Amino acid sequence: MEYRMMILGHFLVISLALNAGLLYKGYSNGKHKAQDIFSFNNECKNASLVTNRDAHIPKRTKASFSSSSSSSKALNEVIDLDHGDPTMYEKYWQQMGEKTTVVIPGWKFISYFSDVKKLCWFLEPDFENAVIRLHKLVGNAVTEDRHIVVGTGSTQLFQAVLYAVSPPNASEPMNVVSAAPFYSSYPLITDFLKSGLYKWAGDARKFKKDKPYVELVTSPNNPDGLSREAVVNQNQGILIHDLAYYWPQYTPISSPANYDIMLFTVSKSTGHAGTRLGWALVKDKEIAKKMTEFIVLSTIGVSKESQLRAAKILQVLSDTHEYNGNFKESEPFFDYSYNLMARRWKQLRNAVSKSKLFSLPEFSHGKCAFSSRTFASQPAFAWLKCEGEIEDCESFLRDHKIITRSGKHFGESSKYVRISVLPRDEIFDQFTERLCSINSL
Amino acid sequence: MEYRMMILGHFLVISLALNAGLLYKGYSNGKHKAQDIFSFNNECKNASLVTNRDAHIPKRTKASFSSSSSSSKALNEVIDLDHGDPTMYEKYWQQMGEKTTVVIPGWKFISYFSDVKKLCWFLEPDFENAVIRLHKLVGNAVTEDRHIVVGTGSTQLFQAVLYAVSPPNASEPMNVVSAAPFYSSYPLITDFLKSGLYKWAGDARKFKKDKPYVELVTSPNNPDGLSREAVVNQNQGILIHDLAYYWPQYTPISSPANYDIMLFTVSKSTGHAGTRLGWALVKDKEIAKKMTEFIVLSTIGVSKESQLRAAKILQVLSDTHEYNGNFKESEPFFDYSYNLMARRWKQLRNAVSKSKLFSLPEFSHGKCAFSSRTFASQPAFAWLKCEGEIEDCESFLRDHKIITRSGKHFGESSKYVRISVLPRDEIFDQFTERLCSINSL
Repeated sequence: MEYRMMILGHFLVISLALNAGLLYKGYSNGKHKAQDIFSFNNECKNASLVTNRDAHIPKRTKASFSSSSSSSKALNEVIDLDHGDPTMYEKYWQQMGEKTTVVIPGWKFISYFSDVKKLCWFLEPDFENAVIRLHKLVGNAVTEDRHIVVGTGSTQLFQAVLYAVSPPNASEPMNVVSAAPFYSSYPLITDFLKSGLYKWAGDARKFKKDKPYVELVTSPNNPDGLSREAVVNQNQGILIHDLAYYWPQYTPISSPANYDIMLFTVSKSTGHAGTRLGWALVKDKEIAKKMTEFIVLSTIGVSKESQLRAAKILQVLSDTHEYNGNFKESEPFFDYSYNLMARRWKQLRNAVSKSKLFSLPEFSHGKCAFSSRTFASQPAFAWLKCEGEIEDCESFLRDHKIITRSGKHFGESSKYVRISVLPRDEIFDQFTERLCSINSL
Repeated sequence: MEYRMMILGHFLVISLALNAGLLYKGYSNGKHKAQDIFSFNNECKNASLVTNRDAHIPKRTKASFSSSSSSSKALNEVIDLDHGDPTMYEKYWQQMGEKTTVVIPGWKFISYFSDVKKLCWFLEPDFENAVIRLHKLVGNAVTEDRHIVVGTGSTQLFQAVLYAVSPPNASEPMNVVSAAPFYSSYPLITDFLKSGLYKWAGDARKFKKDKPYVELVTSPNNPDGLSREAVVNQNQGILIHDLAYYWPQYTPISSPANYDIMLFTVSKSTGHAGTRLGWALVKDKEIAKKMTEFIVLSTIGVSKESQLRAAKILQVLSDTHEYNGNFKESEPFFDYSYNLMARRWKQLRNAVSKSKLFSLPEFSHGKCAFSSRTFASQPAFAWLKCEGEIEDCESFLRDHKIITRSGKHFGESSKYVRISVLPRDEIFDQFTERLCSINSL
């Protein structure tokens, strides 16, 4: 019930994010003028930018992505980093030219069915093969003796797991928990239909009931980027491992994840968020079957077009590592994206250290078994803390026309905000420049 | 609660359908041998086939779709007509060659967002335009002053409406009703998460409570093909019009539908079921907004690839009518599909009249404002009744290796079954031949 309120609150956030254009109008026409709000530090103009960014990009693509972060327009623009919209990846895929172009004739893939002999009968074999190949290449998850269930993003798969593992005739809904700070959508998704099968029960660290429960383990964690293990120490629990960010551009791959229920998504691995495609690796056949049932009842399967396009992209991604000679002008995907994330985190920490009003989490170094690099995590989100007297970090940043998501939506203090590190270069440059220049309340 | 049981029952059906191969093995290895089960009437071999079927198909496509209904293999095959899988449409789209081929570069449509200024921000403008153009061409729905919400099939949109119109803080779930026979998935979809917001309340004709309710009006109706109006006569009701089959190949278009909430799907209009794409035309802005919220929480939007492919296909469909000179070898889409459905219904009625164990509904004639033809409905499903002593029509037909869906799943007697009229020619020919030849218990 109380989350009904949170849902409304959350939609305010979504609504704010989506109406960034309107918000800007409000600012420029209303009492707050840009010059009142911003106290820019000239040292920040380009100071936060890490050079050499485009060294490896072929000439033909540079023009269309040129950054204009120091234009006067940039000073007035609302910077929306509320969602983790992974447009950062556009540039890489444009470099690949036609290699990842998908072509689908109008008469193909008309049927609901992909393979009636499979447990998950709407899973396209090409997508399944591409997923298995990629996991074997990266070594981030065990695929042997696992059932693959495809979903309309890992959001749908999370709900499919809840449906699959809830006892159908229990006297009360099963508890769903995750250690704070947890992904802000988990409570909303769990409770929005007021299901009698499951209900959100909050921070896993505070869960002490002697009852069946589901614990969500997101590792690396959204929003704070930390590696995680389950925290509830009971034997009645079912674990869901959300491994959306367990890819070598974000964190060292220590070993293949080997859990009972693992969720992945193309949104955060290749950047194709608009494709709305995720997959689950599921050990137990009955759970995989019931997840498939959920997806049949919810959407009668998953877009074939999304699966075909993702199959192509994942195969080319693997090719860039295994047959790199064929990709003369491009780096292998995970090298490119690792380097880009490394530069962005350097740029972000640089800006934060100049401003002095903010802090960021520190990550310990680890060796990546995939890349052999030793590095500290460079997550898809920055979990920024406002220091000192700023109690509502989201409002504070919104006053500077930076739209973020408050820590309170993640079960944490409003001194924190979550910020996407995955926008286009131009936006990220504007953001770090503006953040750097905020040096007084 | 009781629908929990029905869900399990329904999955038995799905499971049966999906394991048709296994079922066949069971028959051929088990005690029932094909020769014991079938008492074929030789008059039925080809007697049920309506000739001239391929007269208009270009030579190059004939070979790949050649029918082999009279082969001995056909006698033993399980014929699965449980789902309305619209593979019938493949042939038309293959004739169109590359005109409906969609090409999507790997770097495009990466973002979650299609148009942040729109209420439904994940709706692709190309898809929206194609939908509006098609409705204007066919004249089957008013699009003026309507919000378009895109969904992962109309299945997701139906759930989005329930979420949107349920009072958030009501003391009990809102009642959802539909006049029997109703689409078998409605009760399952409504109840599978045991939502506290809404619950299935059965046959609309029996609904007498003085409470808020949602009435689903499916017209033409699935399963029986009849045109429908709302039946509950109260003023507290919200109507959802499911118009999946309100297209001129199935029924005369009398006038543009002009309801508050109308649902459509590409599955049954163009046949692209694997695309998982539907749209809602919604009068009230707040309802459209809350439907959008539902789709964000459920799947964070809808596959861009599906929308792009559907946009292309709908535009070419409209072109075949408006610029037919450009399509020398092909009929306009709705002429082709009308003619095909007309032949199938003739063939089906022919088979039924020969067998004498079955009957079909009769439909009155009406003039189609789109095609100017006067005809009786030729629905996507046949609502077949087993006459005489056969009480369980589904089991009876299953003994003849024809998989259908029992009337009991539609809130009706098990003397009825729903049978898809949309399979490939070969399957439909096998089906009518077999049906015709069943002439004893």
